[in-house]
Amino acid sequence: MLTLQKIKDAQKTIASDIRKTDLLLATKIPSQNQIYLKTENLQVTGSFKARGAAYKISQLTDEEKARGIIACSAGNHAQGVARAAQKKGIKCTICMPDVAPLSKVEATKSYGAEVVLVKDTYDDAHAKAVELQKETGATFVHPFNDEDVIAGQGTIGLEILEQLPEVDAVITSIGGGGLISGLACAIKNIKPQCKIYGVQAANAPAMHHSFKERHIVTTTNADTFADGIAVKEPGDLTYNYINKYVDDIVLVTEDEIATAVLMLLEKEKVVSEGAGAASVAAAYFNKFNLEGKNIVCVVSGGNIDVNILSRVMVRGLIMSGRRTTFTIALPDKPGQLERVAAVISKGGGNVIDVYHSNSDITMPINSCFLRVTIETRDASHSNQIREALLSSGLIPL
Amino acid sequence: MLTLQKIKDAQKTIASDIRKTDLLLATKIPSQNQIYLKTENLQVTGSFKARGAAYKISQLTDEEKARGIIACSAGNHAQGVARAAQKKGIKCTICMPDVAPLSKVEATKSYGAEVVLVKDTYDDAHAKAVELQKETGATFVHPFNDEDVIAGQGTIGLEILEQLPEVDAVITSIGGGGLISGLACAIKNIKPQCKIYGVQAANAPAMHHSFKERHIVTTTNADTFADGIAVKEPGDLTYNYINKYVDDIVLVTEDEIATAVLMLLEKEKVVSEGAGAASVAAAYFNKFNLEGKNIVCVVSGGNIDVNILSRVMVRGLIMSGRRTTFTIALPDKPGQLERVAAVISKGGGNVIDVYHSNSDITMPINSCFLRVTIETRDASHSNQIREALLSSGLIPL
Repeated sequence: MLTLQKIKDAQKTIASDIRKTDLLLATKIPSQNQIYLKTENLQVTGSFKARGAAYKISQLTDEEKARGIIACSAGNHAQGVARAAQKKGIKCTICMPDVAPLSKVEATKSYGAEVVLVKDTYDDAHAKAVELQKETGATFVHPFNDEDVIAGQGTIGLEILEQLPEVDAVITSIGGGGLISGLACAIKNIKPQCKIYGVQAANAPAMHHSFKERHIVTTTNADTFADGIAVKEPGDLTYNYINKYVDDIVLVTEDEIATAVLMLLEKEKVVSEGAGAASVAAAYFNKFNLEGKNIVCVVSGGNIDVNILSRVMVRGLIMSGRRTTFTIALPDKPGQLERVAAVISKGGGNVIDVYHSNSDITMPINSCFLRVTIETRDASHSNQIREALLSSGLIPL
Repeated sequence: MLTLQKIKDAQKTIASDIRKTDLLLATKIPSQNQIYLKTENLQVTGSFKARGAAYKISQLTDEEKARGIIACSAGNHAQGVARAAQKKGIKCTICMPDVAPLSKVEATKSYGAEVVLVKDTYDDAHAKAVELQKETGATFVHPFNDEDVIAGQGTIGLEILEQLPEVDAVITSIGGGGLISGLACAIKNIKPQCKIYGVQAANAPAMHHSFKERHIVTTTNADTFADGIAVKEPGDLTYNYINKYVDDIVLVTEDEIATAVLMLLEKEKVVSEGAGAASVAAAYFNKFNLEGKNIVCVVSGGNIDVNILSRVMVRGLIMSGRRTTFTIALPDKPGQLERVAAVISKGGGNVIDVYHSNSDITMPINSCFLRVTIETRDASHSNQIREALLSSGLIPL
């Protein structure tokens, strides 16, 4: 049974295993509220999952500990469980889908876990874990539908109340719902007037739909770059706690999440994964219509693949006008590239990519086109260069 | 006169203006030492400069406050001074070179400062600031050669000793030397056996050379992407304190700094600018030959331009084998692109860029070349794909 007392016990039990993460006032994220960041992306293992895993393991009997533990995860839960097991010297097996990024597999191994790579999807890895559990009698550690795990995640709520007693609302993302269940239980039992809001990716809305339709809804897909909250099937325990404690749940788009990832990176100097930035996306795009409130956004994790982060950044540069591509039709004769280069150079644009072709069938036979990508300071700077091209008779298509 | 007492006074004075930044154990940076990060990149304004500026302003007389302050900076000092002035309601003018990134100009304006953009270089902006200072009688706030500013930065040293009494060595980057002077004075007066090490960019080595040659050396260039420490002329005050308190100074290359920026981003989930990551570069590449020690690296700032950060990441992806470009010679006949695409797809590589040309004069007349860039999981994965190409008779050049 999940109680405030249990969460308080978890806080004492795991204190030496985890970081009490900083609560940072996000001064540079434009908002009509005061936004604070609970930086669980800076938690050991890069996400809040270390908390629930540590408490779960502390509650095992000596006999259970001797049989070891097993879990299935493509990401943060794997690392949280592996580290917690290592700390207590417990044998740990993690089944991971073989499509998991190698960096996550390596991170999990680095905590001493035995990693079983299973072909194809998460569901296949899960089936394998269930099979291994039956063979070995190890304890299966569920990522969210477990009251010890939930109580461990709930310690974040106690910390928030200590760090900001005047908190008005807490926003956190929801995958399976373990984090928000524990957090909400802790906070509503101490400060019931504090609002608890959940966020899901519009592309993975199972708990949102369950909450709105008042029964558990599963989805066939969960296709979001916020892989930490790509859950198709809510837990029954978490569904019930969310109904009991959570005030509302909203959805955010992939672009909104990406904007928040970039904003946290650029303005607040912290790396968040999609699931971690979803709370900030909801606050920044004011999905809950709040004004003048003290809002804590739980930045639940920072384990984003560098390839994906790199794409988010390039997309953000383009959207904010700091990277611009001009495609220009030119007469097919000498000196044309120089004309364009001179205008861009005079305007202070920095060329990073050029493509020049005279074989596009859609163009007049005596013309060619030039596609040039430049770095600029901001949208008005790239507009200045566009204007300069225009007034030199060079017409961006 | 810089004393421990003065730094302690600074700590009390600025306590409500700045963040006591977290000290994080960097568990994921491979090292034969325990590396801790003093996260001044998460300081208000994104760098430690907020400390010195706040203390400097607190020491002005009422008359001086009424006349306002003036400073010259292309970056972190500008933001630190502007914010400190705004907090105390003091008029603030900042001269900035017009080549400064717009994000830094906007950030400085957002703290209510009047920004004077001066054509061309930092030296031109500095000359303008000196001229304006004479006209207005405002107090000029030097970025490092000022004992109040140095005392403010020194508060980092006091915090480190509180947070990690068992510290054996502190490593921090050096630009003008204000940060290390204050830090070293604080620490050496309390725990003289703690080593204090400085780091400069090999491309901006003025204080390093001054320290080694035992007289002030200026350089004609300071061309490093770690713009926060691109200083050509050391201060005389800071030179003297460094001689008195600092144990050694080393140089790090641009590639070493870039590696550290990427490592902090990917492993520790924090954004650092080049100047901020230089200390970590020195620790990771073990420039001081330390073993089994508790080392604190001051991550002095996080204000890195997103365009530059994006390049650092792409470079890091390429260096670690997670982004690979193959150039392949092909017979110039139908079906060749498909052959290559099939091998890459079967190997699990994700194509992100393709260039195909038959007009390279260095190639045989009946052949063409294909350049394809793919994302891979790691170096061994990209080698697997290279092998697969080879065994299909496709020879990467």
